[in-house]
Amino acid sequence: TAAVEEILQEAPGALRGKRVVVTAGPTREPLDPVRYLTNRSSGKMGYALAEAAVRAGAETVLVSGPVGLTVPAGVRRVDVTTAEEMFEAVMKELPSSDIVIKAAAVADYTPMQKANRKIKKSGDQMALELKKTRDIAEEVGKRKDGQFLVGFAAETDHVSDHAIDKLHRKRMDLVVANDVSQAGAGFDGETNIVTVYDDQGEVLRLPQMSKTEVARRLMGLIGERVR
Amino acid sequence: TAAVEEILQEAPGALRGKRVVVTAGPTREPLDPVRYLTNRSSGKMGYALAEAAVRAGAETVLVSGPVGLTVPAGVRRVDVTTAEEMFEAVMKELPSSDIVIKAAAVADYTPMQKANRKIKKSGDQMALELKKTRDIAEEVGKRKDGQFLVGFAAETDHVSDHAIDKLHRKRMDLVVANDVSQAGAGFDGETNIVTVYDDQGEVLRLPQMSKTEVARRLMGLIGERVR
Repeated sequence: TAAVEEILQEAPGALRGKRVVVTAGPTREPLDPVRYLTNRSSGKMGYALAEAAVRAGAETVLVSGPVGLTVPAGVRRVDVTTAEEMFEAVMKELPSSDIVIKAAAVADYTPMQKANRKIKKSGDQMALELKKTRDIAEEVGKRKDGQFLVGFAAETDHVSDHAIDKLHRKRMDLVVANDVSQAGAGFDGETNIVTVYDDQGEVLRLPQMSKTEVARRLMGLIGERVR
Repeated sequence: TAAVEEILQEAPGALRGKRVVVTAGPTREPLDPVRYLTNRSSGKMGYALAEAAVRAGAETVLVSGPVGLTVPAGVRRVDVTTAEEMFEAVMKELPSSDIVIKAAAVADYTPMQKANRKIKKSGDQMALELKKTRDIAEEVGKRKDGQFLVGFAAETDHVSDHAIDKLHRKRMDLVVANDVSQAGAGFDGETNIVTVYDDQGEVLRLPQMSKTEVARRLMGLIGERVR
């Protein structure tokens, strides 16, 4: 019945005694003291997940990139700016955690060099040299010792293929895929449209709903899997 | 006396009948649908200037990059995202304006190409090809026909040299310089520390004060100059 479904989905107390680490928001990769490379992540999905984790009874740490959101009640927030800082913060929390949910949109590339002074405009063209950042999900996948790893895949094309590939490469237990080119999904706004996969294939497909509701449903699913 | 000084500084009604265009905030230069290059401008200085312009009696247009600020009462806001959009918006407003205050931190460079799909991570390194954006202040300087042009120079070194050089190159009437590497100045926070130059040299040096107060002082100075 609907009432039972509601209870299962919201799973109150389903994560009691568990320690959850959620990452959220974008990272900023500085070129100089003023300029940086970033992305459109608002952090809303991650913050909603942290709130849902607390509601489900978990001790919750939110490793957050720079966003203008208020930390949900009961959540401990660790503020970071760059991909490197987020990497370090997650690795520090990992050994004592049971569940890691990587909802942040971490920069894949960062400037090779950060200028100490503001770069002055000169030529008509310039090449900005970038290097790959350390992959947090991949490293968590390697180091994990019983932790349940949930990743996100924000894609604009071949969404399920890219997501499932990511799950395998990074040893995730679940991957939450969304097509950020779709209206009502992803970075902007208050709603999301997600499909969740495990290594056997699709496990949950949600229509457009608020990020708060998506977070509760995901936390319900995670609660079932870690029991 | 202090009271007279207060009246002169705040210059109530000093800009009655004048039309002021203020630019504010950063721009965002997209690499793909998700990632972009931007800067740390909060938009607070520009928004404070627009508010001060309205208080001084001016019809005020605020050409604003993406910031999370509320438009001041009485101000007409034009929202833009990229440097190119800001250029177009300012040129459109220019012919009917009396005063142009360029407080935005417009990107100097933008990606040569914008990918339609999210760029997938591949090599360990990559070079991002950038091209110079069109210089708004320089173009306003060229096109201006009686308009009073005020620019900002956010610098981290050789502040006065860079600012005065900018004033001359871009035919500004005043340049407002701040050292963004200084605590209490520039992009972060609620205060600023500025020095104003015209083509004869330094005309106003303000200690650390709120951006609201800086804006009122600057508007007082502008009011004296355009009278």
